[in-house]
Amino acid sequence: MFSEENAAAGVTFARGFKAAGVKAGIKKSGNLDLAMIYTEKEASVAGVFTQNAVAAAPVIVSREVVKTGSAHAIVANAGCANACTGEVGLANAHKMAALAAEELGCKADDVLVGSTGIIGVNLPMDKLAAGIKAAAAELSEDGSKNAGNAIITTDTYSKSCSTEVEIGGKAVRFGAIAKGSGMIQPNMATMLCYITTDANISSQLMQKALSEIVEVTFNMISVDGDMSTNDTVLVLANGESGMAEIQADTPEYDKFCEVLGNMCRELSKRIAADGEGATKFLTINVHGTKTFADAKTVAMSVAKSPLVKTAFFGEDPNWGRVICAVGYAGIPMVPEKTVIKFGGVPVYANGLGADFDENVIRDIMAEHDIVIDIEMGLGEAEATVWSCDFSYEYVKINGEYHT
Amino acid sequence: MFSEENAAAGVTFARGFKAAGVKAGIKKSGNLDLAMIYTEKEASVAGVFTQNAVAAAPVIVSREVVKTGSAHAIVANAGCANACTGEVGLANAHKMAALAAEELGCKADDVLVGSTGIIGVNLPMDKLAAGIKAAAAELSEDGSKNAGNAIITTDTYSKSCSTEVEIGGKAVRFGAIAKGSGMIQPNMATMLCYITTDANISSQLMQKALSEIVEVTFNMISVDGDMSTNDTVLVLANGESGMAEIQADTPEYDKFCEVLGNMCRELSKRIAADGEGATKFLTINVHGTKTFADAKTVAMSVAKSPLVKTAFFGEDPNWGRVICAVGYAGIPMVPEKTVIKFGGVPVYANGLGADFDENVIRDIMAEHDIVIDIEMGLGEAEATVWSCDFSYEYVKINGEYHT
Repeated sequence: MFSEENAAAGVTFARGFKAAGVKAGIKKSGNLDLAMIYTEKEASVAGVFTQNAVAAAPVIVSREVVKTGSAHAIVANAGCANACTGEVGLANAHKMAALAAEELGCKADDVLVGSTGIIGVNLPMDKLAAGIKAAAAELSEDGSKNAGNAIITTDTYSKSCSTEVEIGGKAVRFGAIAKGSGMIQPNMATMLCYITTDANISSQLMQKALSEIVEVTFNMISVDGDMSTNDTVLVLANGESGMAEIQADTPEYDKFCEVLGNMCRELSKRIAADGEGATKFLTINVHGTKTFADAKTVAMSVAKSPLVKTAFFGEDPNWGRVICAVGYAGIPMVPEKTVIKFGGVPVYANGLGADFDENVIRDIMAEHDIVIDIEMGLGEAEATVWSCDFSYEYVKINGEYHT
Repeated sequence: MFSEENAAAGVTFARGFKAAGVKAGIKKSGNLDLAMIYTEKEASVAGVFTQNAVAAAPVIVSREVVKTGSAHAIVANAGCANACTGEVGLANAHKMAALAAEELGCKADDVLVGSTGIIGVNLPMDKLAAGIKAAAAELSEDGSKNAGNAIITTDTYSKSCSTEVEIGGKAVRFGAIAKGSGMIQPNMATMLCYITTDANISSQLMQKALSEIVEVTFNMISVDGDMSTNDTVLVLANGESGMAEIQADTPEYDKFCEVLGNMCRELSKRIAADGEGATKFLTINVHGTKTFADAKTVAMSVAKSPLVKTAFFGEDPNWGRVICAVGYAGIPMVPEKTVIKFGGVPVYANGLGADFDENVIRDIMAEHDIVIDIEMGLGEAEATVWSCDFSYEYVKINGEYHT
């Protein structure tokens, strides 16, 4: 479904969308750092943002745009988060939208803005203005790759995907670019994800779909338990597929949700796998709780445990740390009913370490992708969290970042 | 108050207590690994244990002993946690108490037991039995240092302290040994703390004092957010000071609580400072919340943030990560009312980075002990959490420990 072939098309795979990524000089490295996505035809918009009480200026501005229900463009920069920047920061975020609107011939409240990078530093507005001008001039149907690279920070690669499906008799296209890496945690992260589609759907209905999908995709990843001030997922739908408008409670809506959900799940997994310094991608499935919330709490407790994360980094089948993290999650659990499996092989059952083949487990621990199943035996609910290990590299990246 | 001179006396500083630490061969390193503390005169006992749903066998056994209200001895080993060991583990913990009781001429339910080390491995009972015999034979008033060293695991040093104060006209003595290091988190940790006193106080009143004190001392430290299956704090009071029994709601009780509280606070700080791989000791003071619970939640959110912890390791005055962790704590906060100080110097105020002297802050960040003040400006409550940084060494210790 998400072929690498289409992936390059990213946010410009959907009809009517153009993109660009340029070097505005905001990143110290001199790499691409300013992205623009544009649809000439007005798009309906949906957005989900950080729940951090300290919301960055671009989050405040974009929330206002989402409320209007429609937009023409997204402009985003890396290298500076424009967070904890007060009145000046808020004015700069508004200015950022206005500058882009001027270049694109739309209104400022048709432009969504995003920033990621260092907290507490003001945007260099001269560089930003020049970058916005350059990006607008470079907008093209081949610009998604550059746009994707312009929003990454410590990510090792840009995440993008795209897909075409038939909905309501029409070929409908979806594309996305995303960045993640550090501060990745439930309820969003230093995570920016921009999704475009030529589906025809109201902003209200799309917001309902997105809010539900984020709960079981982006909110189910954890790299380090930190929740950023800047997290944003946006979807723009411009209707260029020519389909009739999608209505609630129809097979077309279900299909739309399925595709958007798959896309968000795929990007969530890639963001977790590319966590800062990660050497392992961990899928933590919790089964048999009374509620989804219970299962998520248990899975997050395991995903966030530094002792579990360092054990997987060391390829140590230390199930003791896993059952310990299950035990302190604060959710009903019975040690004797709980089963833990690594790569499908039971390592803990009946209150004891299971009698497993050490060679088999060693091979499982040596893999890059490892599945941890935790069966609680107390109900029918389940949840999956995606995470990664904790390495020397994580400490290096975060001990040396900034200043 | 807690002079290094008296510290060596540890749990044998209080009159009537003897201790020993021997090499039973349970630790792979061959170091001291079996500790015994004994009072011939029956002591009243109080204990606080892990809240982890997966409680280790020695916790289950010691809880029963604490319920009886009195004890003569503590026997504890390092190298094997006797956790997740099922029926066999529970039988072994009972046997451990019985073996010690036999040597000491008391009843099995007069012996508290403790274990720390690897989860999911059975105690080597032959080695343990020989170690208990040897320890009983070596009991002396000079044995606290060996006992302290016998309960440590990845600790870089054994924590002990002792003090003498006048209560009710008598010189009353207190002493303690403790171990901490990894899995250190609110609500106890892989933390063993054994306190002795020759005060005269009922187990019921001492339990009340201990439970209240643990809430604001041991439960206020966080190394890595993991809560162990084995955490235990025990106090034995044998009355050998000759004082009259301490009654509730008296100046004598207040004094007893003050001394016990100071002792627990001092040991808590030392455990946090000696967190696995720690290079910094962080004191996080949160002021101006509506409740103590709010202040604690905010302080713990900061203490547990891997991004904050790695920033301090890197000596980076990254207040953005601190305000970010305050923001996602889920507690009422107003960014513009919040002030953050490092070493007493404001680094964030009025929703913005403060205009601080970089040289001054660089010197503060280079210190081993760093105080972080977070003023919320919303109430009169406050809380202090003790923590440490996150280093390469933490990853090394926990990636390579075990198997």
